[in-house]
Amino acid sequence: MTDPILDAIRWNESGLVPAIAQQYDTGRVLMVAWMNREALSATLKEGRAVYWSRSRQKLWRKGEESGHVQHLREIRTDCDSDVLLLQVDQAGGIACHTGRHSCFYRRQEGGVWQDVEPVIRDPGEIYAKGAGGKSV
Amino acid sequence: MTDPILDAIRWNESGLVPAIAQQYDTGRVLMVAWMNREALSATLKEGRAVYWSRSRQKLWRKGEESGHVQHLREIRTDCDSDVLLLQVDQAGGIACHTGRHSCFYRRQEGGVWQDVEPVIRDPGEIYAKGAGGKSV
Repeated sequence: MTDPILDAIRWNESGLVPAIAQQYDTGRVLMVAWMNREALSATLKEGRAVYWSRSRQKLWRKGEESGHVQHLREIRTDCDSDVLLLQVDQAGGIACHTGRHSCFYRRQEGGVWQDVEPVIRDPGEIYAKGAGGKSV
Repeated sequence: MTDPILDAIRWNESGLVPAIAQQYDTGRVLMVAWMNREALSATLKEGRAVYWSRSRQKLWRKGEESGHVQHLREIRTDCDSDVLLLQVDQAGGIACHTGRHSCFYRRQEGGVWQDVEPVIRDPGEIYAKGAGGKSV
């Protein structure tokens, strides 16, 4: 099926593009994942970030286990149409599976990567609870 | 040569990872390009964004033609060590080869991608002048 939004994107040889999720009001970059046509289409329809999990080879509705849904505010692409940028509102303030706000918590300092952000919630707790309840 | 920073990154099958450049004081995502070991090493040594150009298959010192250098403030990686996030100060306020502030100037609106950001400087002018002068 043709769709001006999906057809304009230059999907890579695996049918994917990177998608950046940014917290809409603070500008913090939360994470990067991948989308295929189906994921982008679902994201737009459902108003929440839906990625393509390369490891599980299936759609990944962000927050489906953890409750940490990313509510979509806006979506952009770049001049080359090969990256997506999502403005989202991160439920629970936790995007990372490590229980941190952002996945980008490791900063180059003195020639090594240093963890510079606190764990907000223990991942064991997030995913144990998440199995029973899909949303926050 | 071993290096804790370079060795920690999970380079893809082509030896690359995506690198996001973000304007350090506003949080605007400026662009996404690619880095290999050599590019990341050069970025850290030179204090400016150096990417790997997949089309030209060589290092790309951002701003080498346009003068639109990205001065490095900070660099992070994510929980999977397969994406880099650079906080930069964008010289000239123009990251995009189209003459716009950010490459992410196309927003989904009503089922199509709409240009929503002004061209600050004509690309013809940027690159004609750029050929003669490498820095701003």
